[in-house]
Amino acid sequence: MEAALEQARAAAARGEVPVGAVVVDPVRRVILAAAGNRTEADHDPTAHAEILAIRQAASLIGNPRLTGLDLWVTLEPCAMCAQAISFARIRRLYYGAADPKGGGVDHGARVFAHPTCHHRPEIFAGIGETAAADLLKVFFKSLR
Amino acid sequence: MEAALEQARAAAARGEVPVGAVVVDPVRRVILAAAGNRTEADHDPTAHAEILAIRQAASLIGNPRLTGLDLWVTLEPCAMCAQAISFARIRRLYYGAADPKGGGVDHGARVFAHPTCHHRPEIFAGIGETAAADLLKVFFKSLR
Repeated sequence: MEAALEQARAAAARGEVPVGAVVVDPVRRVILAAAGNRTEADHDPTAHAEILAIRQAASLIGNPRLTGLDLWVTLEPCAMCAQAISFARIRRLYYGAADPKGGGVDHGARVFAHPTCHHRPEIFAGIGETAAADLLKVFFKSLR
Repeated sequence: MEAALEQARAAAARGEVPVGAVVVDPVRRVILAAAGNRTEADHDPTAHAEILAIRQAASLIGNPRLTGLDLWVTLEPCAMCAQAISFARIRRLYYGAADPKGGGVDHGARVFAHPTCHHRPEIFAGIGETAAADLLKVFFKSLR
């Protein structure tokens, strides 16, 4: 999660919402992909940290399905990212801060909770929550 | 919708699930971006037609928000694409065939139905439905 937090800090430094994500191979214990939010820099509404990390990892292994790989992200994924995580067949999702307003895992659309959801990762919430939430608080305070 | 169907046919010819999408400027009456599914070709689980068309259009106008633009897609968007449509501030969503198994607009996660959803486009369903559904039927029959 420290690597994901580092990506979140880098995103904040670019003026992006500070969220970071990494895709990890839990067997080889290596980080395959790492990204922070880039929606403003890339003029891309889909450029959330999770989407970018998943796309990087899938490109690296040459397969749209990241079977057996884990995703670590500093904030509860939104519905877009949750559905992408499902399509990517992510094994475990570890997330930091809960997001009652924008989250789509344990809030809002609850993407994995529907019987039509084909793949649901194991979910571990609240990992490094305080550091992740503090980054977001500082960022949004600076906007006011 | 004919341009979206053309993208869907091209996707089928590449061996992809035949779904196509276009982003339209309704005032200038021009197509800004067009794409078909490319998840297999690009090794990218997020490469749905809608995501690709939205990313193309946002890159073209240099803004992650496609305010005032419309999206036409041959199939009901999934939760990932629906949330991306919301983030992109799409004005109107026109879709062809309903997707009770994979849809995230009028089925499953119903992304736009939650009070936490910040932007909900106007939705017009069933446009060119038969042609879109026929393409999908032929494609999935050919897989058996």
